[in-house]
Amino acid sequence: MATAKRSRLTVDERREQLVRLGVDIFSERPYDEVSIDGIAAAAGISKGLLYHYFPSKRDFYVAVVRHGAAQLEAATVIDDAASPEDGFVAGLDRYLDYVEEHDSGFAAVLGAGIGNDPAVRAIVDDVRRAMTDRILDNLTRRVEPPVPDTPQVRVAVRGWVGFAEAASLDWLEHREVSREQLRDLLASTLVAAVTAAVGDVVPS
Amino acid sequence: MATAKRSRLTVDERREQLVRLGVDIFSERPYDEVSIDGIAAAAGISKGLLYHYFPSKRDFYVAVVRHGAAQLEAATVIDDAASPEDGFVAGLDRYLDYVEEHDSGFAAVLGAGIGNDPAVRAIVDDVRRAMTDRILDNLTRRVEPPVPDTPQVRVAVRGWVGFAEAASLDWLEHREVSREQLRDLLASTLVAAVTAAVGDVVPS
Repeated sequence: MATAKRSRLTVDERREQLVRLGVDIFSERPYDEVSIDGIAAAAGISKGLLYHYFPSKRDFYVAVVRHGAAQLEAATVIDDAASPEDGFVAGLDRYLDYVEEHDSGFAAVLGAGIGNDPAVRAIVDDVRRAMTDRILDNLTRRVEPPVPDTPQVRVAVRGWVGFAEAASLDWLEHREVSREQLRDLLASTLVAAVTAAVGDVVPS
Repeated sequence: MATAKRSRLTVDERREQLVRLGVDIFSERPYDEVSIDGIAAAAGISKGLLYHYFPSKRDFYVAVVRHGAAQLEAATVIDDAASPEDGFVAGLDRYLDYVEEHDSGFAAVLGAGIGNDPAVRAIVDDVRRAMTDRILDNLTRRVEPPVPDTPQVRVAVRGWVGFAEAASLDWLEHREVSREQLRDLLASTLVAAVTAAVGDVVPS
């Protein structure tokens, strides 16, 4: 029966089915621990048939990431027919739809969930957490008046650490703004993000 | 002569020397293309001696990332003796010192330079670029009055894409704020970052 069902799928449908399965597989364990045998077993097909669709584990993995990336890109197209503001808000909504519906896939696409060595990921996560904690400590215990220590403020600071990383990497690559401009941008954006997060707690 | 110099190094000094060399090695090519033979040759030591310090390529790689992470963490400690504002600005300055002095190491620590598959990295970079371009297009051509298309604005939008990713990943992990709160935070922070970037072009 399962075989009969499988035979009705076209090559493209089967490939897509395998790729969707791959998102789950690679989200659940590190790349090095995923085996071709395991993928074939999870898909209920022979190793030979799997190789027919994807010549190697790496090819399969790249197809999985490409699939997630295409979905994320499609989700964030800004509708030209809407006003710029409405188009942006609608795009943000679709971005968050994607994040919610494909949470493991989202992490996978960003390289946070798969492809990285788990030991390496743990080190990087520790650095980000330490930076977040330090800034939170400064804001909630040392600044006058202190910023309330809420989940909203925490998300804002964690987001800002991502902002600082992305802006710094872009700056290293292009060097089109001065270091002082980058620093001012980082500082202003932290203040603004935290202010927005605090404002959200006590709506005016 | 080189041998005489080498023999004067302690075990810890030699390890650290190798790790610093590793930052360059892993920044320049993908993990899979780095060989133990190549590392030993670059360090001017035997493969056997290299194995004495690091039992495997992965151990060496993890040590390299840990070294970069420790430097980044040390750079961003906030000085308790300073006022919170001065402490934060001084921390930002040290963060940017680190970024400038260890540009390849910074990318390495963040997983942007090493450890990830180059094909995968290219896909992820494309998604981020597409998101950045779309938002820039919306801001500079559709919003009234249009936002000027400057390097400052571009860095701000690129940074914001990092903010959205980091905040979304944090939200997925903790789910402590509502989706609406996250969306409002993302929208407010984009406006604030772009406003800061525009303000920087025309100082008041």
